[in-house]
Amino acid sequence: MRVGLDIGGTNTDVVALDQLGQAIQSLRVPTGLGASTVAETAEHAVRELASLIGCTVDDFESVGIGVPGVVDPETGQVRHAVNLGVDDLDLADPLARRLGVPVRVENDVNAAAYGACHLLELEGSAALLNLGTGLAAGIVIDGQVSRGAAGGTGEIGHIPVDPAGVICSCGQRGCLETVASGAAIGRMWPTDAPIAALELFDRADAGDVCAVEVREIFATGVASAIRVLVLTVDVQTVVLGGGLSNLGDRLLDAVTEILRRWENGSAFLSSRHLPERVRLLPVALHAATIGAALIGATGLGVPVSLRSPAASLD
Amino acid sequence: MRVGLDIGGTNTDVVALDQLGQAIQSLRVPTGLGASTVAETAEHAVRELASLIGCTVDDFESVGIGVPGVVDPETGQVRHAVNLGVDDLDLADPLARRLGVPVRVENDVNAAAYGACHLLELEGSAALLNLGTGLAAGIVIDGQVSRGAAGGTGEIGHIPVDPAGVICSCGQRGCLETVASGAAIGRMWPTDAPIAALELFDRADAGDVCAVEVREIFATGVASAIRVLVLTVDVQTVVLGGGLSNLGDRLLDAVTEILRRWENGSAFLSSRHLPERVRLLPVALHAATIGAALIGATGLGVPVSLRSPAASLD
Repeated sequence: MRVGLDIGGTNTDVVALDQLGQAIQSLRVPTGLGASTVAETAEHAVRELASLIGCTVDDFESVGIGVPGVVDPETGQVRHAVNLGVDDLDLADPLARRLGVPVRVENDVNAAAYGACHLLELEGSAALLNLGTGLAAGIVIDGQVSRGAAGGTGEIGHIPVDPAGVICSCGQRGCLETVASGAAIGRMWPTDAPIAALELFDRADAGDVCAVEVREIFATGVASAIRVLVLTVDVQTVVLGGGLSNLGDRLLDAVTEILRRWENGSAFLSSRHLPERVRLLPVALHAATIGAALIGATGLGVPVSLRSPAASLD
Repeated sequence: MRVGLDIGGTNTDVVALDQLGQAIQSLRVPTGLGASTVAETAEHAVRELASLIGCTVDDFESVGIGVPGVVDPETGQVRHAVNLGVDDLDLADPLARRLGVPVRVENDVNAAAYGACHLLELEGSAALLNLGTGLAAGIVIDGQVSRGAAGGTGEIGHIPVDPAGVICSCGQRGCLETVASGAAIGRMWPTDAPIAALELFDRADAGDVCAVEVREIFATGVASAIRVLVLTVDVQTVVLGGGLSNLGDRLLDAVTEILRRWENGSAFLSSRHLPERVRLLPVALHAATIGAALIGATGLGVPVSLRSPAASLD
């Protein structure tokens, strides 16, 4: 069995896959914050998973972990994982020693991109546009995660696209993240509703002029991020993922409408076929957890031939 | 000997390199426009080069060609090379048959990026930012040209970064090319001087307020293009090339100043070390022609170990 973990700021998801890539068992535990607590959470989650399955940790061939921040997969070092309260954490080797199982660590968006390629059976090149609280992309080319010179590939949330835009948390003005993210929706659509994005889309569908306008700004931001990815890297597919992908086809439709409108004004852009490249990644597929399990397995030289893992982990 | 051609809208440059990558002979001939004439120009240039060297075409092991437009290096097909008057041209195979030498074709900016990596001895990943009449980038990662799913990698000139910008030739508004290109300088600094960019920088250096402002807009555009490349692909090095790189250190200084100013306002951007990644590519190095020759050689499986080709071809 191969184990994958997705360590988020609130919860840690863990899954065990069998040799065919089918999910055998999954589990969600709350994430403890701070370097040592994050490491303990990971160990605890793996041991709990074994207990639920009724096996021992020795039955696991590999553990792969997706974690926010700047990750060096070679050393297993995690840095600047702000929402985990981690500045610097040597995660892979100590955990591998404690569990007695090989551990690989990867940035969580990269892990989700890797998982999405397998879950959606994507060939060639793909970018996962992670629409969460923030905005970032993971890029996979010919089955390889693109990490870049300093682990910074896909930091497109902080590309400014409007000199008259609002100040971003990064200090720049008019970044893509200031319009195309959960935080951006929270700012543009203040509400007491539990899920601001859902209320926004509901109101827009009901014809609320203000909601239509905010949805338009948001969808234009997402479309702009897609354009940056296609014009810079020419990825075959851009997958919309992250928490906001829970909006489903309503998200895809809003973004596609913007892309098609742009095509009407630009033969050049039309020749790039942007709308045809966009896919939606259902949150229920747990791409980051499964991607982490697959990346953990690659560290062993285990052939990764998984094409249709179980769609449901819940 | 390996031959490289750079077919431009005005001239075609051709060079022969010896086994050590030293330039033996170079030649410039005017480019004839239209598909059949472009092919004839290429053949003529190669035969003239052999004649100048005093050898026969049979002494050439390979021919590599850099050409504008969408190029499929597998088939040797060239499409949409607008400034060559070429809509569709099967360049490689017919030329190879006529010359009796293997021919490989590559997009000219990609060829220049490949050549720049060798000429500047760059390791890892690099982007060549081609500041010509237009704006585009070539990306090389670990010695491989990145072409993307549809040969469209590096089309960053048509990423809009200002909703209040001017209309671009592509039909969109506020594209990077509308501020960071020779055409942009021509629009923003109308003059009878033979080289508008040179006059602009001279006047700015002399304190002309208007020139300082236009230079600032231009340099900000170039810096924005660098930011797009580093935040999306995380290339180790961004090389400033193309005709405008003739401005030399004055270009590099103007762009670096903008990048450093940005760092003061953003700890995130500062952590990406943009100024340290930027290099200037002297036009005299003929990166596209030499890159084409090296790419032609890779088609043969000839090891490319060239590190210090002759700096001067003139």
